[in-house]
This record gives sequence, structure tokens and C-alpha cells, in this order.
Amino acid sequence: MSKDRVVLAYSGGLDTSVAIGWIGEQTGSEVIAVAVDVGQGGEDLQVIRQRALGCGAVEAYVADAREEFATEYCMPALKANGMYQKRYPLVSALSRPLISKHLVKAAREFDATTVAHGCTGKGNDQVRFEVSITSIGPDLNCIAPVRDLALTRDVAIEYANKHSLPIETTKHNPFSIDQNVWGRAIETGFLEDIWNAPTKDVYNYTDDPTYPPLPDEVEIEFKQGVPVAIDGRPLSPLQIIQEMNRRAGAQGIGRIDIVEDRLVGIKSREIYEAPGAIALIAAHEELENVTVEREQARFKKTVDQRWAELVYDGQWFSPLKKSLDAFVDDTQYYVNGTIRMTLHGGRAVVTGRKTDSGLYDFNLATYETGDTFDQSHSRGFIEIYGLPAKMSAARDERFGRGL
Amino acid sequence: MSKDRVVLAYSGGLDTSVAIGWIGEQTGSEVIAVAVDVGQGGEDLQVIRQRALGCGAVEAYVADAREEFATEYCMPALKANGMYQKRYPLVSALSRPLISKHLVKAAREFDATTVAHGCTGKGNDQVRFEVSITSIGPDLNCIAPVRDLALTRDVAIEYANKHSLPIETTKHNPFSIDQNVWGRAIETGFLEDIWNAPTKDVYNYTDDPTYPPLPDEVEIEFKQGVPVAIDGRPLSPLQIIQEMNRRAGAQGIGRIDIVEDRLVGIKSREIYEAPGAIALIAAHEELENVTVEREQARFKKTVDQRWAELVYDGQWFSPLKKSLDAFVDDTQYYVNGTIRMTLHGGRAVVTGRKTDSGLYDFNLATYETGDTFDQSHSRGFIEIYGLPAKMSAARDERFGRGL
Amino acid sequence: MSKDRVVLAYSGGLDTSVAIGWIGEQTGSEVIAVAVDVGQGGEDLQVIRQRALGCGAVEAYVADAREEFATEYCMPALKANGMYQKRYPLVSALSRPLISKHLVKAAREFDATTVAHGCTGKGNDQVRFEVSITSIGPDLNCIAPVRDLALTRDVAIEYANKHSLPIETTKHNPFSIDQNVWGRAIETGFLEDIWNAPTKDVYNYTDDPTYPPLPDEVEIEFKQGVPVAIDGRPLSPLQIIQEMNRRAGAQGIGRIDIVEDRLVGIKSREIYEAPGAIALIAAHEELENVTVEREQARFKKTVDQRWAELVYDGQWFSPLKKSLDAFVDDTQYYVNGTIRMTLHGGRAVVTGRKTDSGLYDFNLATYETGDTFDQSHSRGFIEIYGLPAKMSAARDERFGRGL
Amino acid sequence: MSKDRVVLAYSGGLDTSVAIGWIGEQTGSEVIAVAVDVGQGGEDLQVIRQRALGCGAVEAYVADAREEFATEYCMPALKANGMYQKRYPLVSALSRPLISKHLVKAAREFDATTVAHGCTGKGNDQVRFEVSITSIGPDLNCIAPVRDLALTRDVAIEYANKHSLPIETTKHNPFSIDQNVWGRAIETGFLEDIWNAPTKDVYNYTDDPTYPPLPDEVEIEFKQGVPVAIDGRPLSPLQIIQEMNRRAGAQGIGRIDIVEDRLVGIKSREIYEAPGAIALIAAHEELENVTVEREQARFKKTVDQRWAELVYDGQWFSPLKKSLDAFVDDTQYYVNGTIRMTLHGGRAVVTGRKTDSGLYDFNLATYETGDTFDQSHSRGFIEIYGLPAKMSAARDERFGRGL
Repeated sequence: MSKDRVVLAYSGGLDTSVAIGWIGEQTGSEVIAVAVDVGQGGEDLQVIRQRALGCGAVEAYVADAREEFATEYCMPALKANGMYQKRYPLVSALSRPLISKHLVKAAREFDATTVAHGCTGKGNDQVRFEVSITSIGPDLNCIAPVRDLALTRDVAIEYANKHSLPIETTKHNPFSIDQNVWGRAIETGFLEDIWNAPTKDVYNYTDDPTYPPLPDEVEIEFKQGVPVAIDGRPLSPLQIIQEMNRRAGAQGIGRIDIVEDRLVGIKSREIYEAPGAIALIAAHEELENVTVEREQARFKKTVDQRWAELVYDGQWFSPLKKSLDAFVDDTQYYVNGTIRMTLHGGRAVVTGRKTDSGLYDFNLATYETGDTFDQSHSRGFIEIYGLPAKMSAARDERFGRGL
Repeated sequence: MSKDRVVLAYSGGLDTSVAIGWIGEQTGSEVIAVAVDVGQGGEDLQVIRQRALGCGAVEAYVADAREEFATEYCMPALKANGMYQKRYPLVSALSRPLISKHLVKAAREFDATTVAHGCTGKGNDQVRFEVSITSIGPDLNCIAPVRDLALTRDVAIEYANKHSLPIETTKHNPFSIDQNVWGRAIETGFLEDIWNAPTKDVYNYTDDPTYPPLPDEVEIEFKQGVPVAIDGRPLSPLQIIQEMNRRAGAQGIGRIDIVEDRLVGIKSREIYEAPGAIALIAAHEELENVTVEREQARFKKTVDQRWAELVYDGQWFSPLKKSLDAFVDDTQYYVNGTIRMTLHGGRAVVTGRKTDSGLYDFNLATYETGDTFDQSHSRGFIEIYGLPAKMSAARDERFGRGL
Repeated sequence: MSKDRVVLAYSGGLDTSVAIGWIGEQTGSEVIAVAVDVGQGGEDLQVIRQRALGCGAVEAYVADAREEFATEYCMPALKANGMYQKRYPLVSALSRPLISKHLVKAAREFDATTVAHGCTGKGNDQVRFEVSITSIGPDLNCIAPVRDLALTRDVAIEYANKHSLPIETTKHNPFSIDQNVWGRAIETGFLEDIWNAPTKDVYNYTDDPTYPPLPDEVEIEFKQGVPVAIDGRPLSPLQIIQEMNRRAGAQGIGRIDIVEDRLVGIKSREIYEAPGAIALIAAHEELENVTVEREQARFKKTVDQRWAELVYDGQWFSPLKKSLDAFVDDTQYYVNGTIRMTLHGGRAVVTGRKTDSGLYDFNLATYETGDTFDQSHSRGFIEIYGLPAKMSAARDERFGRGL
Repeated sequence: MSKDRVVLAYSGGLDTSVAIGWIGEQTGSEVIAVAVDVGQGGEDLQVIRQRALGCGAVEAYVADAREEFATEYCMPALKANGMYQKRYPLVSALSRPLISKHLVKAAREFDATTVAHGCTGKGNDQVRFEVSITSIGPDLNCIAPVRDLALTRDVAIEYANKHSLPIETTKHNPFSIDQNVWGRAIETGFLEDIWNAPTKDVYNYTDDPTYPPLPDEVEIEFKQGVPVAIDGRPLSPLQIIQEMNRRAGAQGIGRIDIVEDRLVGIKSREIYEAPGAIALIAAHEELENVTVEREQARFKKTVDQRWAELVYDGQWFSPLKKSLDAFVDDTQYYVNGTIRMTLHGGRAVVTGRKTDSGLYDFNLATYETGDTFDQSHSRGFIEIYGLPAKMSAARDERFGRGL
């Protein structure tokens, strides 16, 4: 009779390399390693594949999902101006559902019943992985060797040495890091003292904004809320994020230092770098200011906030997330045009907007010749608009509560 | 029988100087000039007072309302992180209700039946003045000479020259400007072409962030959401705003360029400078991140947004605004502590937080020795937390809507 | 040169019959009468058409829009559980945009530049008509003879008598009434004293619930949020509303007595009858309870509320309304199944629900044999779910704010 | 050395009577029984006390908390129109925090370290108890013998017989019931089939509305959102709820049959009876319609919904709940006056309202003589109010998206 099979989210690093054998030993299952490129950089997928097999995986599934990630995960986030707590552009929160999707795909392909991931038991990502996985593969089980099978770092090093696994066991990063093309997250270590400022070695996607190169002017063209060209050159979503990462990163844009409310109920201190994301969101928000109607824009802020909370909270595949997407997509129909932006010294500053589908009307707005706004309507408007407040005020006076 | 009396919001400038006589002529009323110092700088209140009388006012009421403005208007805005469209710190929207309050006070003192202001008929401020005034003096009438009595600029110049009013008629600002201690608003002129970048002469509260002086580190102490000391020196709200304006302004912090949804239904392009406000709000928001509980913080974002919309929309004295204040005040009880911030090159960056009343718990957050978070709870949490999404996913599969 | 043309929303009653000639006299325009059947009952459209022509209309446009109204206006309202102030099912607010659409269509067909309606200047309907009309025909002008051309009731009677118009001038309804297939609205008269209870003559769609016939059990089948059959018989939306009006009306269901916040800033007292609407909404809400996921359902309540406010406020054709519809439609995909309801004595009570696409899972819910809910997860869930409140409580204790 | 002590939420029934000894056996602790009267009726507190001691409790703490419950839990719910899923007046959700408070009080008094309750592991109440307890006693442990110590019903019966406990073991209720003065909840049994209608034996607080006595007219006076008198007689909150339970119950008012989203992620079917609560909320809501300003009322609906969700979800003592209370309390200042209501045949219908602090203004509302509403303001209002929709419509036309 055939063994049970486990697909493992495989990074190529020490912990998940050891997990291949460890899961096998602890559960008696065969392990299939799954590595997904979401733009995290680092080693070649084929190198990672070989290492997985070298560490005992019966199969290795690798996928270059960078375009998929940019198009189907980062772009919806951009349309929703996706920021948790107004600051965090949801870097890891976006990649987890995509990786989960590939894990489930691999589980189906290789007949696995269980999915394993390398997260600890106190972070958001365990929840994001497991809720995403059961949201698309409701019959699958989830395990986390670090959390459930006592695979501590010391155990991992000892195991790797004992079994001569083809993986380095010496280097130890002082931080916990997760990165993809949308950004980079750094936590733990001395950052856990929230009075400590981050040091320079924390950063990798961004140069120090204190000493920037000359200002860099960029023009970003959007169609229905999605960037389609930079400085006139048509590019794919992935290419646009990459170019903006490079150019905004050189100016030190997109460094974030925040105390954050985790899904598991604790506050944690996080550093992020997301140069492209931050610049693109700033451009997108201003293009919305020009093209989206006022009440639609006001309500969209509530929708955007809930969208970010849901995605942060691991509910990418939830019914509410889909319905919010339907709302957001409908608002983006006219979000077309070009934003000119100056990137410099940590700042991405919009300096111009151009659109054929905007609601800014020069003739209504101008105070110069050509003004078409009929000011005689204002008195009637104010009278009726202010009526409830006025009646409340009269009541306050009657009851001695006036000013 | 005595004449009707009008109190006029008097700036000391050409338009309102002419309005004193113009209102008298057009309506047969006596005019009382009211000048309120909200930190707009410029001339001495006594100089303004004399000019008003010189222009024909029967009385002149002047008030240094700077501390009142800082304490009762700017501090509530700070507690609500008051930003319209996420960007505009409500500069003029905050001063209008305060000026209105003094106008009503003057109207009571001098037995006036009408209040006049210098706004045009297509902006927000006419609404803010008139709704504020009738919200605290529901029996008072409002008039706007520019809008209602055809007092155009050309008419004003001619009138001033003809009557030899003690006011300059030559200098013409290319922009329309409003300013107070919380910030400065600039609009019209070539800025009405939204593709044009602002030029340097637009700015006055801030230096160019492109060429900043050395970084400036500042520590701001808060008590219940309100800043009480800078770098260990206890200061009043007004003093804190002024010092932050000076220090953040020197670093070019707080320049804002935005297309904005006006209350009267049009979009307009606005430039703002609010160095102190922007830096203080950034500090306050991060201190909230450390001290305010997650669900309270999430809902407060909705309250903050509605607060900003209401205040922008001229509803400072409305019942809803008061109830939102009650909510906000309750959330600020534990917003105590010190934020360390680096001001440099247009950026106000929080680098440290210290508080006795926070909810950040090092022992729960740390991944090092001392970790008190019991990771064994996570599986149960995820299982139940993820149940609705999982059941929805199983349904999607049944109906062929799965991934 | 040809005369300007005005299309007039024509009811066939005294006021709008007189308005045909009156508008002609006052403005020198030709008048086209437009009568739209939204299920208000009363006279035949051809009779109304002849009267319009007899009163001097140069053309008469009549349309049986009952199916269109039921399908495109009432059904979206049902999907959004459309209730203003939780009570009012938006009867007139739904018909105004549809009538406006036909007015604009007629204006295009007959080359008119202006649209006229019979509303006064203090109600909601003037706003709904004019905002709807300019929202689909932004170049058209709007006039309201009663409000703008001084066409009072006395003037109307005198005019009708003088010109021997083919319309009765004697009967005077003590109330102001508007009705369509979705319901009936009654206001003014002695109802303006809000301590007065409505008398029996106020009602027409409903019998007195105090003395009901025997209970009536009904089964309503829904597909994607829309009712498609009653007691197993497939019916159109219009037929379903009509049958439910008849059966629920016979039981006195759907009488509403409310003080309401009008769009023009005043409170008014309104009586409504909407037997079919109220019964259908009750059935739809309970079917949503069974089929819509929790978080989706919670957020939908916010969307539903905003939807009702917008529609009440005359913004049927606004961008936000469309985006809210996109959200609502997405939530209705699985709102399929049958609701059994007992209609009796003013109550429409759901007694059973049956669905293939629900999220109610007997095995998870049951406390009997077959229970599949793993209770061992609960401790972990509670521990983490309750963590923020627990930490806040510990802080309260430290600061002497505990219980 | 002294034994650990456990306080147990004691009902006097079989399960918790057995739990006294069972907890002792399983944990080696002494058990203190705590019985709290929240108006659930049934046996005398002294009888229950004696039974607890007879079953082995070392101490018994009993409290008549009915006035406290009515005043501090039901009245805040009434001010927030507290309804979960628009229908459920939070009956058990309100009593759990109060009972938890007494449990913590008893734990302090008797030096206990642990609190025990009789809930299963799949309901809301386990969460409400444990989150409430740790929200006021963050150092206390919680256990649930049924869930954690395998105390099934069969075990309980056997244990009771074996130890001859002074408690009946034969009668078995087909339903699971919880009740207090605010209402009664019934679940499980044949109700788990959601197509089954409830049978008559399910109900106890209400008579069958199908055959009601004569209509009963009642006048309820409110002060700041809280009822203070019925038919002119001043009464305490408890007395008012009791009288309304009696009178509305006799008319069959307040029966609720709903599929509900539990906090633990499943849907369950619930029957409730809450005659007093439903009638009082209907009265309160209509008084709010008359006295609360429009925008305040609209936002309050969002606050009320979140309040109900939080309380349902066991977060009574959470920071957000307190801040929402601050908002709600501020809105109730003018909610004074008298509501006249007819109770009959399952319906609580408001027929009149009287108030000195309302915003209904007869002179503004009337269409008769005395009308003070200036209709000439409406055109200006509509023009500006409708401007954004009009501009959006013009854009739609330009892009071929018009009607």
C-alpha cells in the first residue's frame, strides 16, 4: 500500500530542507517539495529543485509565478490601495495565498493529503497558509513542523549535520526576513525593542534616503487602475513593479517602521521596504482623486480598509474578499491616465496628472475667465444642507446647551 | 430707530476692507469688523483694528485666538488623525468654526442680526462659515458680499481708490491663500492646470526638501493623545505646533499637492503646507499603534475618516461631530508616551516609541528567550477562525466554482 | 423657428393636467405629456393619453413599465434588502429614477430641452427627479411648475374651470399619496401631528391586521437573490410582487408608520403600505442568513444601509450606487432555495428554509449523534481570540481602571 | 498546604450539580458554587444554595443581580438598539458578562484561581464566559467540565445516581434553553432541521399571537434613551422590562426564528422569545427617529451594528465596546419623550410620539398654513447636490456608457 504524501512549501533554506526528512521520519509520509518564485530573488529554481531532491524529497515542484503574482495579486492590491494600518502594503500577505494555490495544485498533481509549511505558531503566516489552503482545498490537512513537530533551529542544525544535507548550517541571520517583488519584511532581533531605530543593515531593497542621487522624474500610465506603461514604454505589471522598485529603491522610498496588530492578537514591530509598491500606490491614489466621484471615493476608503484587513488576516479566498473585489473593480473603470511623479530622497511626490476620463473640470474649478460654476445656487444649497445642524443648534439653545 | 448691524469677518485685506463700506451702502446697515488671530501671521491685530475703523466700521472686535485654536480645534483634529482624503490636515476647515464662534460672539455683543464673510460662492469656506454660524446662532442671517452683493475684485479696487481707503490696491497675489498655525492652503492661478507642478514661490511654511539641513531628531511626549512636551520641555499645544512648524518646516516636511473633492460638488487642485501637523499626526498615529487595541484601532479608522469628512464639510458644530468626539476621546485614555522621530528632507520618520500604557508586550512578541506566547493554541484558533472560509470553499467546489 | 419643448411627468390628475397649459403659457414652450405605469393602478394609459392631448399636450408618451420596474428596480432593492431607516422599503424612491428614464427617453424622441415634474419644493421627489434626470441627460433642464411657476392648487382649480379642462376639480384627498407596485406612501393632513394614530381610511393596499382571515402559508423560491416561483408556480418578478401584495395585503402585513429624515433636511411623518415588499424582504433576509458567509453578511449590512440611503437620496444613477450593486450581486450567487412563510395578522413569519447552496451544516450544528465539530479546537481559539481583550484588561488593572 | 479553588457557574441543574464533585475529583480542587439571578425564574436562590452545598461545594455565592442586569446590561443594549443580525436582541450575550463579573468577584472573595462554566465546546457562550472572565480577571484560568473534563450527560446521570446527589436525573428537556429577564433562547432537538417550524411547546414567555386578547395600548416614557415610566407610572428598568414582558408576551410579541452566524464559525438555528425587549426597542427606535439628527442617526446605525456584533462575540468588556458606548451615550441626550404603542397579535406598533426635545418641526413639515420652509432654496440645493452625479453622467455619455 502506498504511503501518504505531504507537499511542503520549500524555500531552499535550512529549516525547510531539514523538514523534508523530518516530516518523513515523524509522520511516515513521502514529501514533495514545492518552491514558488514570487520574485524573492536568491537562488535559481533548478538549484533549489536539486537540493530538495538531495534532501530526500520524492518529487520537487517548482514554479516561476512572478507574472502571476504581479498580475493577479499585486494589481488587485494596487486597485484597492492595499495598506494595512494605513502603512503596510501587505507584502507577505499577498504571496501566501498564491503559494497556497501552488501547494494545493501540487497536492492534487501528486496525490498528497497534507500540506506543510515552515511557519512558527505565533505569526500571521501560519494562519494565512492554512486558511488559504483549506479555502481552496477544504479536504487537505495542514501541518507546520516547527510548530507541530518540534523542529527547532537547534534540532535542524543537528539533523542537517548528522544527515550531511546539502545545505549550509552556519550562517545565521539576525532577523527574520520574507521578501517578494512587492516588498520585503524584516522582524525580530534587536527590533523587538521598539525604542531601537532600525540600523542600515536591515535594508536591502532601498538605498539610504538621507544621501539620495539626483531627483528622478517618472510618468506612469494607468488603464482601469492598473499601470501599463512607464515613461511611455508599455510594460507588464511585473516589469512595472521591478522598474519602480529599482528607481524608487535608489531614492530610498518605501521604508516603513511600524508596530502592527497581528491576527493572532499580539502587537509586533515590523520593518518593511516596498519602494515600487509605495510609489505606485501614491500614484494610483492621486489618479483616483481625479477620476473617481466623491461619494464613490469616500465609500471606497471603507472598502479599501476592509480589503486590507481581510487580506492581512489571511482571507484572500474568502467570499467577502471576492465581493469587495467586485466593488473595487467597478470603481476602476475610469481610472485611466498618466501620473507624473518625482522620486527623490525617500519621497514619491505626484507633480502632475493627465486624463481623458477625469471629473476635474477646469471650467468649473477656475476662478479665472471661463468659470461656468453658477454661484447663485450656493445660498439655496447652504440653506438646505445646513438645516439639520441649524435645527439642532436651536434645540441646544433651548436646552441651555448652546455655546 | 437704530440701524441694523452686520458683523464682518475682517482680514485686513482689500476685499474685506472695501466690504465694510460696501455692505453699508448696499444694505443700509452698520458694520462691525471682527478680526481673529488663528496664527495666520501678518499684521498686528491693533493695526488691523485701526484700519477697520478707518474704513468705516462702527466697531472693531479683535481676538488673539491662537491658544484657543491650538487647544480646542487642532488637538481634537490630532486625536482623530484628521486628514481629508487621507492627505489634507483640514487647515482652513478647522479655523472656520472658531472664527464663526467669535463672529457670533461679536454679533451678540454688538446686537447684530447678520454675519458677513468674504468668501466666494464656489468654495467650501462659504459653507463652513454659514453652517457654523447658524449652528451656534440659528437666528442669525449670513451674507457674502462677493457672492451676494457683486463685490468683484475690480469693483473693490475702484471703490478703495474712490474712497481713499487706507489699504493697498496694487499688489495682486497670483494665488488664493489661507493660512493659520495648523497649516497653509494655496490654490488657483496656474495650479488650476493639474499637469503643472507647483513652483517654489508657492511655499512659505516649508523650505525645499530637496536640499535639507542635517537631520533633526525630536522626541515628542503625549498624554491622552495630546502632545505635552518636546525634547523633555513641557509646552502648550500652541507652542508645540509652532516649534514643530519651525523644525519640520526647515526640513521641507508637510508639502501636499492634491486634487480634492469639494463640498460643493466639484474637484479642485490644492497645495498645502502643514509641517507641524503632518509630523505630529505621524507621531500620534504610531503611538496609537502601540497603545490602542486592535479592534478599537480598526473601528477608529472609520470614525477618523467620518470625522475628517464632517469637519471638511463644515459640520464642526453638528451633533454627529460631537458624538464622534466622544468616541475618539474614549480611545485616547492610554495614548501616553514618547515618540522619537527623525525630521529630514521632507520626511518625518518615527524611529522609536516608549510608553507605560502600551499593549506591545515584549514577552509575547519575542522569538528569543522569554517567549510567553503559547503556540499550541494556534491550531485550534486557525481551525475555528478559518471554518467559514473553508465551508464556503467546499461549497464552491461542489458548484464547480473552486480554483 | 420651432418652439422649445418640455416633457412633463403626467399623472392624469388635476395638477399636472393644468400644468400642460400653464407651462405653455408661462414659458412659451410646447408640452409633451409622459405617463408611466409603474403599477399605481387607476385609469387606463389610453384614457390618460387622451386627457393629456385634451388638455393641450402636443404629444403624449405612455409606457407600461411595470415589468421593467419590477425587474430592474424592485429586484435590485430586494437583493439589497432596501430599507431606509430600517423600515421604509423605498417605494417612491424606486419609481422616480425609472420615470426619469422614460422622461429622458421621451425628451430625446421629441427633441425637448426641458423636463417638468409636479413635485413641490420641500420633498424628496423633486430631488430624485432632477438628480436622476441630469444623471442620465446632463444637458437637460428641469422645472417644477408648482415650485418654480407658482402653480398652487387654487390656481390650478381656477385654471381648469376657466379652460374647461377634461379633469375633475372637486374631489380633494385629505392626504398626499404616491403608489406603485412596490408599495404606497401616504403623508400630510392630520398625520402631520405625530401624536395622531393613522385612521383606517389611510390604507388601501392592506386590510386591517386586527381581524385577519385564516393564516396563509406560502413557499417562495429564490434564484440568486430573486424570487422565481410561489408555491411551486414559476412567475415573473412583477407577478410575484402582485401575488404577494394580494396575499400579504389580505393579512394586513406591511403597514409602516414612521418619522423620517428627508433629504432636504427636515423630519416628516410618513405612512407606508408595502405588503409584498415587506414579506419578500423578510424571506430574502432569512435565505441570506442560511446562504451568505458571516463576514460577507456583516459587511453587506453596511452596504445595504448605504444603498438604501443613496437610493432614498435620489442617487440611483450615481457611480457609487453602481459599485454597490456590483458588490451586492456578487453576494447573491448562492442565495438560492425556498422559504416557507406564514402570513397572518400583520406578520410574515419564516417557518422553514430549504437550499442546496447553503452554509448551514447539520453535522456541524447538531448536538446529537453525527456531530462533526471538533470541540478540542475551542480552547486554542478562545485563548487567541480573547488575547487583545485580556491584555487590555491587564492594563486596566495596572492603571486602576479594572472592575 | 491549602487546596486550589475553583468557582463554578452554578445553575442548580443536573450538569453543574454533578460538576461540583466532578471538578473536585478531576482536578483536586475545592469548588465554590456561584448562582446569579438574572431573571431566569425557577427556583429560589436559597434552595439552589443549599443544593450546591449538598452536592459538595465548599462555599456557595448567590446574588440577585436582576436590577443590575436590567440597568447596566439591558439598558445599554436598548440605547444601542442591540440586535444581532437585525433580529436577535442578544439575550444570552448580555447575561454572560454579568455572570462573569460575579464569578470573578467570587473568585477574589474566595481566593480561587480558576473559573468553571457548564458550556459545551461549540457554542458562543464558552467564548463569552472565558473572554469576559479574562477581560476582568486576566490572571484567572477557565475550564469547562463538559468540554475539557469529558463530563457528558450520561456520565452526569451515572455520577448523580452513584453519589445520590440531591438533584433529579430523569427529566430531559428536548431543547437547550437559556433565559433571563431580557428574553429566552431555545435551540437543538428537531429545530436543527431548519425546514421544521417551531412547535407550540417551544415557547414560554409568549402566548400564541394567532389568537390574541384585545389590543393593549401602552405609553412608554423615555429619558435619555432609557424608559422611566409606563402609562405614567415611574418604574425601574427591571420593572419596565417585566411589565412589558407580561403585556407584550400576552400578545405573542417577540417570537424570533433565525439561522444565525455563531462566533465559532458555524451557522445554527435559534428560536428566541423577547416580548419586552422587542417592544421596547421598537419604541426606542421610533423615539430616536424623532429626536436624533439625520447624520448622527445614520452613523449610529453602523455603531449599533458593530455594538451588537461585539457583544454577541463576547467582547462586552473590550476597549472598543467602551468607546462605542461613549458614542451611543452622547447620542441619547435628547432621546426624551413618550411613545404610544399598540400591542396586539404579535405586533408592537407605534401610533404616536410626544417630545419636547425632538427635531420634528411641524411648521417646516406641514403642507398647510404655517409652512415656514422656503422652497426657493431647493433649486440651488439640487443643482449643487446633484453636480457630481451629473458630471459622472456626462462622462458616461462621452464614453458611450450612458443609458
